[in-house]
Amino acid sequence: MENFTAYNPTKLHFGKGVTDKLGETVLEFGKKVLLLYGKGSVQRNGIYEKIVKQLHSVNAEIFEFSGIKSNPLVDDVSEAAQLGKLNNVDVIVAVGGGSVIDSAKITALAIANNTDSWAIMKYKFKPQTTIPLIAVLTLAATGTEMNGAAVLQNHETDEKIGYVSSLNYPKHSFLDPEFTFTVPKDYTAYGVVDLIAHALEAYFGEGEASLSDRFVEVIIKEAMEYGPMLLKEPQNYEYRANIMWAATTALNGLTNYGRKSGDWGVHDIGHNISYLYDTPHGATLSIVYPAWLKLHKDRIPERITKLGKQLFGTSSVNDTIENLEKFFKSIDSPIRL
Amino acid sequence: MENFTAYNPTKLHFGKGVTDKLGETVLEFGKKVLLLYGKGSVQRNGIYEKIVKQLHSVNAEIFEFSGIKSNPLVDDVSEAAQLGKLNNVDVIVAVGGGSVIDSAKITALAIANNTDSWAIMKYKFKPQTTIPLIAVLTLAATGTEMNGAAVLQNHETDEKIGYVSSLNYPKHSFLDPEFTFTVPKDYTAYGVVDLIAHALEAYFGEGEASLSDRFVEVIIKEAMEYGPMLLKEPQNYEYRANIMWAATTALNGLTNYGRKSGDWGVHDIGHNISYLYDTPHGATLSIVYPAWLKLHKDRIPERITKLGKQLFGTSSVNDTIENLEKFFKSIDSPIRL
Repeated sequence: MENFTAYNPTKLHFGKGVTDKLGETVLEFGKKVLLLYGKGSVQRNGIYEKIVKQLHSVNAEIFEFSGIKSNPLVDDVSEAAQLGKLNNVDVIVAVGGGSVIDSAKITALAIANNTDSWAIMKYKFKPQTTIPLIAVLTLAATGTEMNGAAVLQNHETDEKIGYVSSLNYPKHSFLDPEFTFTVPKDYTAYGVVDLIAHALEAYFGEGEASLSDRFVEVIIKEAMEYGPMLLKEPQNYEYRANIMWAATTALNGLTNYGRKSGDWGVHDIGHNISYLYDTPHGATLSIVYPAWLKLHKDRIPERITKLGKQLFGTSSVNDTIENLEKFFKSIDSPIRL
Repeated sequence: MENFTAYNPTKLHFGKGVTDKLGETVLEFGKKVLLLYGKGSVQRNGIYEKIVKQLHSVNAEIFEFSGIKSNPLVDDVSEAAQLGKLNNVDVIVAVGGGSVIDSAKITALAIANNTDSWAIMKYKFKPQTTIPLIAVLTLAATGTEMNGAAVLQNHETDEKIGYVSSLNYPKHSFLDPEFTFTVPKDYTAYGVVDLIAHALEAYFGEGEASLSDRFVEVIIKEAMEYGPMLLKEPQNYEYRANIMWAATTALNGLTNYGRKSGDWGVHDIGHNISYLYDTPHGATLSIVYPAWLKLHKDRIPERITKLGKQLFGTSSVNDTIENLEKFFKSIDSPIRL
């Protein structure tokens, strides 16, 4: 086992009605709120109204920035940061999935350090401080609600890249599984793929970490059991809840403790595909993972076989890859470009 | 799944040589250190010397309290708190297993609130603050290094009871598996039993929590795989590391998220046995758990069978219990009074 530090400062509130505490939580940090969200879907499904009601209940002053894309752009972050700086906001409330919350993390850094968002992403400027971020999650997928990572793309420099900092952890995250009831089937499936891919990136990383391997295996089992059931019953609370919590645990540190690092090769390729074709992130991963496994099967045959044994009861590399493909196909996530 | 809050503020440093950062970590909080430990074993095995060297390296002023018993007493805590108050210490460094760290948690509360330790334990006084605690773990067992629980006994009131508070989390915990190399075989085995029992208390608690169940199952599998190997090779770093990390994860929240609560009936009985006969905590649990399962087997047959299927590949309640007994016997932990 490699040396590691286990530390996760996010306070995560999970369950039905948890955003009833959002207003009082915001007050811990101040009254001037930068409210970030993406498309109008949060307005159509009533989540926006619930959040704004909470903010009004504590007389918060709201500065709103919306329109964050599902493959989020640094330009939007820079604009949001400008709005935040201009109005001297105390706290960001980000309502959405990975795109919105990732954007909010960099917005918070850009505001607190009065600096350029892309300079942060490229590690050219090293922030020492940030402003508090409260996340309200509406999509189970990326795990951003309980980690320090953010991914953005830049059309000027032709890049989609990730940035990791201990400053990025949300202070609070609110996860109400009911908030994901209206996520369409395709994005529900991509979320399941994304969480499986996160667990796999850890599994195929460097270093021996027995218990972390076991955590990876059961998180994927959970996703493979409840993912398909959820696609049949998108409004089933228990299924939504199980997938939502599995997605958080797949990338909140747990699967990685005791390793040197995860692999992240598949995500790198996936980001490039998303950049080129604006493909949903999860969909790129179900395409790339089987291909990546085929490419690396002579380098890490035991590891792939161990995974297959745990997940599918198989005993060969090829059977493992085939079963993984079959699973992705079964939930209608693409496996070829 | 029940609503829950996932939050654990402890920063846990795991691996070979991690206490090399102890000195600078202490300085985050101040220079006046109350150093708590138990018996002279930390002096014999060189750990005491390493810790004191770290404290001297940052010119810390050390106030020492030793002699904490393995079934820790509130009287010792009160004395330690007096020493701490008298000298206005900034931080506690607790070097030991569960007894020492649990004692340190209540000592910290008693110092910060200038109040009686037992009043805290009995929830008669509700502390609002504490002083920082840094834990250096020398025994893999209780999980106290990353949770808010403490257990003490009181010979005046004839009680051994637990106290849980969010103030109790150590600020930092240092877990160097090498620090457990000299733990004797019996206490190594009791530690393995203790961590399994913690996972089981969650498993048999109230509420459906699918992923937490899976975490329980793999933590116990890890313990059942590496426990016996460790007893054969007590100085094997990987085995010590795997058991140490398993013990932390068995009671740091992970196994309980999504449940109403754990059961904790077995621990309650175990505490009473320990109180009456001064039996090591882990040894009481391997005695009580099989008996408890027999008592409850008609109430929760599916749950016991599910556990047995995962751990032993069995398919009946009786086979599960029998196999659990066999495991405890195999590592020489008692199964009868």
